[in-house]
Amino acid sequence: MALIKAAQSMIAVGKLNVPVLEITQAADVGMGSFYNHFDSKEELFEAAVADVLDSHGAVLDLLTSGIEDPAAVFACSFRLSGRFFRERPQESRILLANWGALLSADRGLAPRALRDIKAGVAAGRFHVEDPELTLAVAAGALLGLGHLLQSQPDRDAGATADAVTEDVLRLFGMSPEDAHQVCLLPLPDMLFQE
Amino acid sequence: MALIKAAQSMIAVGKLNVPVLEITQAADVGMGSFYNHFDSKEELFEAAVADVLDSHGAVLDLLTSGIEDPAAVFACSFRLSGRFFRERPQESRILLANWGALLSADRGLAPRALRDIKAGVAAGRFHVEDPELTLAVAAGALLGLGHLLQSQPDRDAGATADAVTEDVLRLFGMSPEDAHQVCLLPLPDMLFQE
Repeated sequence: MALIKAAQSMIAVGKLNVPVLEITQAADVGMGSFYNHFDSKEELFEAAVADVLDSHGAVLDLLTSGIEDPAAVFACSFRLSGRFFRERPQESRILLANWGALLSADRGLAPRALRDIKAGVAAGRFHVEDPELTLAVAAGALLGLGHLLQSQPDRDAGATADAVTEDVLRLFGMSPEDAHQVCLLPLPDMLFQE
Repeated sequence: MALIKAAQSMIAVGKLNVPVLEITQAADVGMGSFYNHFDSKEELFEAAVADVLDSHGAVLDLLTSGIEDPAAVFACSFRLSGRFFRERPQESRILLANWGALLSADRGLAPRALRDIKAGVAAGRFHVEDPELTLAVAAGALLGLGHLLQSQPDRDAGATADAVTEDVLRLFGMSPEDAHQVCLLPLPDMLFQE
């Protein structure tokens, strides 16, 4: 949809304080069309971030489709998502401000992560009693990671993301050795810039 | 300060959409005085939440002052903080919307948690390589817990908070048995209502 694409372009270059009129002009739609779909600019930006999360999730599915071990699938996705905060600072800022979207049960990353956690349990790799609760904690850990990477620009994003991934895997009941091994696996290339 | 107290009273009864004028009248100060201290109502609400976190931290310090084991101090504080989300829904809503305040390094809960994590490491109870990173992950876990307790009102707040505390303690490098034991300790009474 043209308005979401326009909002994503604005977000990508850090233009967050633009008037609605400028967004509708960039999208080549009328003001009425905007208010048919969204109550406010914030709502449009939130939809734009949800859309980014959907795309990000679809890319992760593609990149991990060849990996058999569910623990390795989760680790790869989490390590790449951590790096995303450093590579895409504008989307990250909006995401951190609208973090409910990350935890939303029906779109974006949450349903994929829940699927991966359950697959890890079924394969005997994870030992988790309450997958929904574990998902909330893991998503919170990802947010804490994102906040830290944004507030400490000199921090090594890759090493920090991998350390949090190891933490989360141990929290999922993996042994420290197994968690460490799975985070040493080579990462697929992910193009963060569109 | 009168404005902060007035804002906390509004928050406590769920009046979040009040005009600034109503807040200044409740605080018995002029509009000019408001804008000398705050740029917006959101900024005042954020300061009010930071103040709640400071008080909460001071109460936790008092309640845990008799506990010697630093792991038990952290566990007690985390278990009580999780319950806070259920007991004080209005403050929690503002806190979840302004979660940067929770992670702020210089006020409220973050410096206390960092102190407790370092004490646990010094006592050989926690095995943590990067305390700042661990703090960010633990704070994120607390946010995820808060989000879950707010979005699932039927969920048992005590059991859920204790489960997340165990998760976090294992992430701090405690054995599952030790983490479980420390979360079975009796909790001091905490009056959540003012």
